[in-house]
Amino acid sequence: MKKFEEKTIHTEKIFEGKIIDLQVDDVLLPNGEKSKREIVKHPGAVAVIPITEDGKIVLVEQYRKPLEKTLVEIPAGKLNNNEQPLAAAIRELEEETGYTTKELSFVTSFYTSPGFADELVYLYVTDTLEKLDTPPAGDDDEFIEIIELTLDEAKQYVEEEKIHDAKTNYAILYLHSLWR
Amino acid sequence: MKKFEEKTIHTEKIFEGKIIDLQVDDVLLPNGEKSKREIVKHPGAVAVIPITEDGKIVLVEQYRKPLEKTLVEIPAGKLNNNEQPLAAAIRELEEETGYTTKELSFVTSFYTSPGFADELVYLYVTDTLEKLDTPPAGDDDEFIEIIELTLDEAKQYVEEEKIHDAKTNYAILYLHSLWR
Repeated sequence: MKKFEEKTIHTEKIFEGKIIDLQVDDVLLPNGEKSKREIVKHPGAVAVIPITEDGKIVLVEQYRKPLEKTLVEIPAGKLNNNEQPLAAAIRELEEETGYTTKELSFVTSFYTSPGFADELVYLYVTDTLEKLDTPPAGDDDEFIEIIELTLDEAKQYVEEEKIHDAKTNYAILYLHSLWR
Repeated sequence: MKKFEEKTIHTEKIFEGKIIDLQVDDVLLPNGEKSKREIVKHPGAVAVIPITEDGKIVLVEQYRKPLEKTLVEIPAGKLNNNEQPLAAAIRELEEETGYTTKELSFVTSFYTSPGFADELVYLYVTDTLEKLDTPPAGDDDEFIEIIELTLDEAKQYVEEEKIHDAKTNYAILYLHSLWR
């Protein structure tokens, strides 16, 4: 849909990084006035809800520099160049948890911050995990620890804001809705 | 929690905007190596799930420049300077929908993109709406249209990706979980 479309008059590239780029667009508003839009470009991301045989959720604990604290999240990561979301989801699952799967079901996708960023997250779920003998290495600068929680434990983590991000809060609510 | 803490060696300010700032931090990793973190600073945001007397969800349709398309979302907006989340939520509800309320319940909060941004969204719900005679004006550069949907209609919008952002997908799943 293009209702209330804002036409681009000019794009100023501000920054090109490893994860994100930043640009500021001069736009023409529907009423003919001009405004500026600050836009973060992101390659997109995948996340997986991995469920073990005994019904536990596999999560990863990780320091998040923007928040200056450690969060517990479902395994996730950004898409590599030209990578399909499903392939990326399996890769991130393997790298971050040491599990793999042959059956990954699509749950939903959503933009995380449509006001200023184009990041789209694809969310998958699997309850058929196989432990890898030699998990592939993840990113050099990524330090993570794996935690397996029951749904009740995960809800407690949400209460305590140890779990505190959109994709993981969504995942816990999804399982709550599915399993009760 | 500070597990796997990454200490800041140097912060380079890249951009200061209306909505977001951008900085790149040089950090010391837990293994003693150095890396860079691209960080978007955001003031934080609020969102409201407004439910009418006859059980419809009040949503707003809005062009999202980063996505170059129109999305249907629950009313939301960023925190003004020193504004409390609850006050901001009522303000955004009034500005965007023309409704107000005396009873707003906290649902949850989450970081939208903890890998590269510090944006935290506070989510509220209300089913006691009152129509304002003269709604306050919103932002000059915001063009929105109000839509009221049943939960089933909203789920259809999710299917069709007209609803397609973290806070609104969460809100629809929340109501699905609550009402079924």
